[in-house]
Amino acid sequence: MFGKLYLIPVDLGHPSFEALFPTLNREITSTLTHFVVENQKSARRSLKLIFPEIKQGELSLLTLDKNTSELDLNPALDWLKSGKNVGVVSEAGVPSIADPGSLMVKLAHAQNIEVIPLIGPCSIFLALSASGLSGQSFVFHGYIPIDKAEKTRFIKEMEKATGRNQAQIFMETPYRNNQMLEDLLSVCKEDTLLCIACDLTLPNQYIKTQTIGKWKKLKTEDLHKRPCIFILGN
Amino acid sequence: MFGKLYLIPVDLGHPSFEALFPTLNREITSTLTHFVVENQKSARRSLKLIFPEIKQGELSLLTLDKNTSELDLNPALDWLKSGKNVGVVSEAGVPSIADPGSLMVKLAHAQNIEVIPLIGPCSIFLALSASGLSGQSFVFHGYIPIDKAEKTRFIKEMEKATGRNQAQIFMETPYRNNQMLEDLLSVCKEDTLLCIACDLTLPNQYIKTQTIGKWKKLKTEDLHKRPCIFILGN
Repeated sequence: MFGKLYLIPVDLGHPSFEALFPTLNREITSTLTHFVVENQKSARRSLKLIFPEIKQGELSLLTLDKNTSELDLNPALDWLKSGKNVGVVSEAGVPSIADPGSLMVKLAHAQNIEVIPLIGPCSIFLALSASGLSGQSFVFHGYIPIDKAEKTRFIKEMEKATGRNQAQIFMETPYRNNQMLEDLLSVCKEDTLLCIACDLTLPNQYIKTQTIGKWKKLKTEDLHKRPCIFILGN
Repeated sequence: MFGKLYLIPVDLGHPSFEALFPTLNREITSTLTHFVVENQKSARRSLKLIFPEIKQGELSLLTLDKNTSELDLNPALDWLKSGKNVGVVSEAGVPSIADPGSLMVKLAHAQNIEVIPLIGPCSIFLALSASGLSGQSFVFHGYIPIDKAEKTRFIKEMEKATGRNQAQIFMETPYRNNQMLEDLLSVCKEDTLLCIACDLTLPNQYIKTQTIGKWKKLKTEDLHKRPCIFILGN
């Protein structure tokens, strides 16, 4: 009998188990000793938040980041095939969504191993639901081009797609957030809606949707180095 | 001082608070008496699951469904402006995502009212994270065309987009799920990956990703009338 692969969401920075996770996550995590993680140090910290009594010395952790190959994950497949349940943990939020994890999940499906996603915070979905923009049809682009001309073209294409009532979700490296906002304000039309969702689940959480025209008039928050989701809509 | 607009996720069918929601959701819901809801009967049931001691007779519920106009929501804006906190509740999962709610959120932003999304189950994100398909770039299309020729064209376009490593997420009216699967099997290429995620969070949850070629060979689950998310990837 194969083990099961659990996808374990972790916090987005603010350390409160009660605010972020169902009790079931603690019950399941307390039974696991084998994990595939994006970063070993932060995974240990996150797992301790979920289950404080976890015995760190008894954990087996295998790293899965952007440099990991299928072959590197063989030990985790062996754990699953020997009947052990395995947890997947990324640096923040839900594994596989704007984060590593999907390679492990893909390999598990190919071996008919059951995959069970647990419930927890995901910045993209929190931002979308709180944006007031279309959740009936939407795209997540991840990071958009850095090159000035390409970025401008990409922003214009996204803006055009909002006319089909499709929300356009994207991110930026946090130290370039203020520049991204400037670019959006200079490229987009006055009546296009922009949602900025910043520091989600943290005490200084900031979620605001308004037209580009109004963003230009407002003294905006300083977004520098704050994890941020941008959404364009109409 | 304006009230706050809380987005309150509800269950996807299986009635277990501990499996689905952080304790914080109960604490917040217990303080609310005013709600904007997709369906009054199911909202009352869902709220009782989250906070069993809720006093149903003291609740003020305003309906927000696909027929609701901005004007219809004026009473809820008045509640917020008078300082009352208001909860938004849809039939299943997270408000505003493949469900009503975003109109209320949009109006709140326009009035500078704070919007706070709570954490809970969302079938689209659970399916995507557990699919093994790309969570770095993805589209949610909602319902795709019903007309045979249009549907075929749409499926082929989605399949083409998977080549850019962009997962394609969509739904079907549950009584047409088996037909949708047949269409996908007849239109898509043998090596395209298809994830079927069905009855999420329920005891008979079924999440499986494999190639179209393998789906053809496998005796598949009966998907009839089971809530289902389809994802194409590569």
